[in-house]
Formats: sequence, C-alpha cells, structure tokens
Amino acid sequence: MASEDAVAGGALVSLTTDFGLRDGYVAAMKAVILSRAASAQIVDITHDVDPQDVLEGAFALETAFRHFPAGSVHVAVIDPGVGTARNRLAIASGGTYFIGPDNGCLSASVPDEARGPRAAGDGYRPRAAKLPPEVMAVTIENDSLLRGPVSATFEGRDVFAPVAAYLANGGVLAELGPRVQSLIAFPAFRAPSTGHGLDGRVLHVDRFGNLITDIHGADVRPGSILIAGGRRLALAHTYAESTGLAAITGSSGLVEIAMPHGSATQVLGLAAGDHVRVTWP
Amino acid sequence: MASEDAVAGGALVSLTTDFGLRDGYVAAMKAVILSRAASAQIVDITHDVDPQDVLEGAFALETAFRHFPAGSVHVAVIDPGVGTARNRLAIASGGTYFIGPDNGCLSASVPDEARGPRAAGDGYRPRAAKLPPEVMAVTIENDSLLRGPVSATFEGRDVFAPVAAYLANGGVLAELGPRVQSLIAFPAFRAPSTGHGLDGRVLHVDRFGNLITDIHGADVRPGSILIAGGRRLALAHTYAESTGLAAITGSSGLVEIAMPHGSATQVLGLAAGDHVRVTWP
Amino acid sequence: MASEDAVAGGALVSLTTDFGLRDGYVAAMKAVILSRAASAQIVDITHDVDPQDVLEGAFALETAFRHFPAGSVHVAVIDPGVGTARNRLAIASGGTYFIGPDNGCLSASVPDEARGPRAAGDGYRPRAAKLPPEVMAVTIENDSLLRGPVSATFEGRDVFAPVAAYLANGGVLAELGPRVQSLIAFPAFRAPSTGHGLDGRVLHVDRFGNLITDIHGADVRPGSILIAGGRRLALAHTYAESTGLAAITGSSGLVEIAMPHGSATQVLGLAAGDHVRVTWP
Repeated sequence: MASEDAVAGGALVSLTTDFGLRDGYVAAMKAVILSRAASAQIVDITHDVDPQDVLEGAFALETAFRHFPAGSVHVAVIDPGVGTARNRLAIASGGTYFIGPDNGCLSASVPDEARGPRAAGDGYRPRAAKLPPEVMAVTIENDSLLRGPVSATFEGRDVFAPVAAYLANGGVLAELGPRVQSLIAFPAFRAPSTGHGLDGRVLHVDRFGNLITDIHGADVRPGSILIAGGRRLALAHTYAESTGLAAITGSSGLVEIAMPHGSATQVLGLAAGDHVRVTWP
Repeated sequence: MASEDAVAGGALVSLTTDFGLRDGYVAAMKAVILSRAASAQIVDITHDVDPQDVLEGAFALETAFRHFPAGSVHVAVIDPGVGTARNRLAIASGGTYFIGPDNGCLSASVPDEARGPRAAGDGYRPRAAKLPPEVMAVTIENDSLLRGPVSATFEGRDVFAPVAAYLANGGVLAELGPRVQSLIAFPAFRAPSTGHGLDGRVLHVDRFGNLITDIHGADVRPGSILIAGGRRLALAHTYAESTGLAAITGSSGLVEIAMPHGSATQVLGLAAGDHVRVTWP
Repeated sequence: MASEDAVAGGALVSLTTDFGLRDGYVAAMKAVILSRAASAQIVDITHDVDPQDVLEGAFALETAFRHFPAGSVHVAVIDPGVGTARNRLAIASGGTYFIGPDNGCLSASVPDEARGPRAAGDGYRPRAAKLPPEVMAVTIENDSLLRGPVSATFEGRDVFAPVAAYLANGGVLAELGPRVQSLIAFPAFRAPSTGHGLDGRVLHVDRFGNLITDIHGADVRPGSILIAGGRRLALAHTYAESTGLAAITGSSGLVEIAMPHGSATQVLGLAAGDHVRVTWP
C-alpha cells in the first residue's frame, strides 16, 4: 500500500553525496532530475559526507534507504575517482534502484551474505562482491540517456541524475548497459565474533556526539560488557534513563554509545573507525 | 483560497528538529512520511536547533508556522526525554496540526492567553498550560497507526512521522488517543511590563548576528529607549539606514538588534537568554 | 519536452539566498510560495552565500539556473539594502523568470554581451546594464500581489516569494509593474584578455577546496600555462589523473584548480576574488 501511494506522488529519489549544500552542485543534480522526471520527489539523505569518505556514504545510505517505499531510486555519489575508468552502476535490488560509481558507496544494494563478514581485527575495506541472481546490476554505457557532453568532473549531474530520472520514469535497467556479475562493496556492517565476544568498530559519530557502532543489538548476549575507550559499559534502554555514558541499541538495531546531555565522542575520545568490543559474560 | 490550493498539492508538513542534516535522521522521517502520504509536501523549518534546546525549537516553530496554509501539519522533535514517559501529542489548533513530545516544543499550538505571561525578571521555563476548548490535544496511544516496533531512541521516525502522514491524509485526531486538557508550554513570547518599561530577553541570534528579542514592536511607546549590553538604542526602520547598531521591529513583529555590515551579537556580547530592556520615555 | 514534463509537476522555483538554514527565514519563504502555488516544486540552489556577498550569490545562480527547464522561476535574495529604495525586479529572459533586488544578484538574467566584459586588472563590480529587447524586466510595484503589510526587513517573504508564486501560476509579468530598460549586473563572468594571456579571478571556492575561476576553458590556447599563487600549472583532464595541483576545465566550462586528496585553496593560499592568470604559449 505504501508503494502504491508513492506511485501516485511520483517515485522517490534519494541523494547521498559529499557535495555539501553551499555550492550549487546538488541543485544542478535536482534540476536535471526534475527536468526529466517532473513528478519525482527528491529526498536528501545527506550531502555532508566527509569529502571522499566512501565508507561514511555507504553507511548513511544503508541506514536510510530501508525507510523508503518500493520503487524508490537511490543515488549515491561519493567519488574520488570521478572521470576515471571505474564503472558507473545502476542496480535493481529488492524492489529498489541504486545508482552511483562502483567504489563501495552502493554497498546497500548487496545482501550481507554476498558482501561477507569483516575479518576480526580488520577495518572496513571495499572489495569485489559476487552478486546473487536476485540483484541485477548494469554498467551505464548508453550515452543517449545521459546529459551530453558528459563532464569529466561532474558525473553526478551528467550521468547519475539522468539515469535516476530515467528509472523514476519507469525506464528499463537493461537499456542502460551490459550486466555485471560483481561490484565493489564493503563487508557487511556487522561486528564479527572473536570467540570471546565481538570485534566492533565505530561506524559513525552523529550530531549529538553519539557513537554508532557496527555491533548489532541482536548479536549481544545478555550480561555482555561493551568496552570502549577504556570504559566498561552495560546496555541501557533509553538515553534519558542514564546519567552517564550509556550503550543502547539504537534505531537501526546497532549499539550506540551516548552521553546524556553531553558528547560520547568527546568523553571517550573515539571517532569513526575506532575500535570497540563486546565481551561475553 | 490559499488552503484550497494547498489541498490540490497535498498537505504541507513542516519539520523542526535538532537532528541536523548530516546523519540521515531527517531523511528517515521524510521517507516514512512520503511512504504513507505520497502527496504531502515537506518543508524544513530548521534542523539546526541546538541539541536539546527545546525553547529554541519552540520559538522557531512559532515564528514560521503562521506562514503555512490552513490544514498544514507541523512536526517538532526536540526531545531530551525520548523514550521516557512524557506524553506524545497531536494537536489541532486554529485549523493547523501540531505533533511532537509534550515538553514545550509545541507551544505555538497554545494561544498566548492560555500560556500566560512570563514573570518580569524570570527566564522562559516550560510549565503546564490549561487548554482552551478550541484547542484539541490528544496523546498518541494508537499503536496501529505507528511504525512498529517503536524505537526507544527515534520516535521522530516511528511515532511522529507516521502520525504526520496520518493527519496529512485527512486522518481523525480522536483516533490517535485520549484527549488531554493541558500540555507543557513556554510562557507567551512577549516581554512583560515592569511599570517603567519592558523586561525583555534575547530569544534567538540569527545567521547575520541579529538579536531577536521578545519585545513586541507594538508594545513599545514612541520615544522609548532599548538598553542592551550597556548600550542605549532608539528604534530605526530598516537595517540599512543606520550605520551603527540599530533596534528595529523585524519581520515577525519583534524588536531585533542589528549591526549593519557587522554582527550585533559580537558587538554587544549578548546571546539567547540574555537580558535587554525598554524604558518608557 | 523537458519543459512539458515540468509543467505536469508544476513550475520549478529555485531559491538562492544568504539566509542560511538555521533561522526559519527560508521556510517562511517556502510556506508563502506553496500557500499560493501549491503545485510548485522548490529547489534550493544555496542558502549559504556569505552574508551580503551579492557577487557570490550572482555566480551561484548563474552556474545553476542553466540546468532548470524552461518556465522555471529563480528567486535570489542577497540584499544588503533590504527595505531601502533600490528596485525590486521581476525579469523574463530566455524563457526563464528571475526575481530579486536590483543589485547584481540577478546578473544571470542578462546576456554576457549586455553585461560587457570586465576590464583587465579590475575586480567584479556591479554596474548598470542596458537590457536587450528580448529581456523584459519590470519593477515590482503592484502591492495587491504581495503579502501585506510588507516588512521592511524581509522582502524575501513578503515581496519576492509572492511574486514567485504568481509567476509559477502563470501570472503575467506586465501586471507586476512598469518596465525598466536597465538593471544592475556584474560584468560577464569571463576573464578578459591581456594580449599576453588572460586576466583571471577566483570566483568561488567550493567544499572540496577547489578554486573555480572565471577563465573559460574554451578561451585557453593549447600549451598555455595557468599561474596561481606563484605556481605554474598545465591543464589536466580529471582530478584523479594528477597527484598534485591540477588545473582542469570543470563542469561549468570554467577552469578550476584542484588538489587531489587535498585543498587547493589551502595549498595556494588563494580565495574568492584573488588573481590567477593564463599566459599564452
């Protein structure tokens, strides 16, 4: 029903970039999309990904896209390699479209099983993931659908925005280019087991200074302890019930560390990429 | 006529939060709203309220909501107590809907008379306000309308966004839960009289460094003097006609202090909450 | 075809201001526009123009508006003189509408030939430009179309937003007020020749620290050298192929200076307004 509603108002198109909102780059993308798909509705996921931080963008998209209705089109452009030879992808996965460069920022389109786990002790590094049959990915090579001539520095406007409009209008993925069997993805955002507990990483620090980790609340055994920045924390239920540092399963199912009326990132001195771990009771 | 127009394009839904735009929280709320109310149009009032500053959010909403057409739905989520037992409210007031936690951030839904005046010498503190009969407020308790399971940390997405969609779609307030007779509100944003003048407060510092006060231009007698940061100012008509600090009745009817080509907040060393006063001539 | 599509979804209205997104000013403008033109679609170009930097706003609009379909309405409000006697303009130029104060921020509405070149050695200063017959500009004087009473400090909400809605609804320019034959515009954003090369200026520093210049890639002769901050640079094709500072024709056809995985503005110590030059081979 949600998706029928969405069709009535035009497909939703989400944007995730590191372009910021100062420079007019995002506006150019929106203008191109709405010029070609006037009934699309555009939702910004974020444009404040740290410049060229593909991992941060991939995680932002993965967290947000699940709330969109079927048929939505998600564009992610965090692209240190713009204008070079890496693939430009359009993907249909689970009733949803994904568009962007083939560098890991579209990891959300690949099921966790195909992405595989992160090795304990390792950080998140992008790598090739073989696609299961239910995920269809193509490289964008049909120039007639693009905005020409394609700029070497702004494929967001000239390649990915036109393709977003094309798919929002009901276009056919296969018309865009040949199918690929694998793409670059980050390991599943799920802390692996060490035998004694979980080897976690901070994935994101939010505006409130909360540390969002890759530790799934569902993976934590009752009575476990979270060790972060030299501190030992038990799991709480809401931010407000604690007066000090609290570890709590957040709104995406991931354990996050919060400091009520303060900033966990400052108190603990931890940032994205840093180590946190869970020890079994 | 404006409201008929608005119906044609779907109800307007405004958002006021302290979530910022970096983290994808706002996008999740928008996705939930548009999944369920595809023809809604969402307008951001601000997401840059200082973290957990309920007063700032209440004032931002009060200033902006008057410009929206009848039937609009205003969601405000500045919520230090998320996940705890405070009420979650939906309110119909003056042809407009308001949705959010019961902590003062929805003060705009309550007429000034019911909120009562601030006592001279006091700051703005939230308190219970008895609602007049023309304001209908309910606590949100009908879980079938929410996004389940409700997260303990993100009711904006799981409670307030679904309710916004429900009301934007023409839903009935009484279906949401039982009626309440009072809610938490800040005193009316209107500097009280001291007998010798007005006891004002800075309510907001805007991007230009202008100090927006709670002194109503309509309450100031001709020839009065505004005293702020040790400086004495007469009222001017536009920013540009003055070359130094100017006190002027701004676009919301409130006296604001501006420094042309400079920043009044820096020149005066004043911030939100600080004292300013008017002395009668 | 693009414009027919756009009509189906309502006219696009773009906004370019120095209001920021913290204060609710932009939301008030959007609420007024959507109250009166419910099917309009609003796209933010930027609201982060440096306070009162008319040149920066004019350049942002000029860069972005070309991507919008015919019939779009572009509102730009960077207005140090708000409330004073400068004209308030509505302009039809090349199938597109422009609305804002007459101070240079609407330069994009005037063809380069009418704006004339910048003199070599000079900065960008606004000046009167005589309009060619195909550009129709009027001063906004028909108060019945405005939001009354007009605030002396917020014409964006009370004048320019209502006029944007009026034109988005298919309103007639001549109804707004009398025609004017000239308006204030910046010289064409195109580095003039010095005989030995081009006299360039940095027009903008983007989020990545790239320096966007007014040097048109099409004006540069093969083998020319760009001199910026004491460094001599040849032209490259993409950011990524260079490991050091690179000068490359960017997505708007202008030469920009980039530092892969770094910030050109920091490396060179250059900012908007600063000198860069091209020497012929």
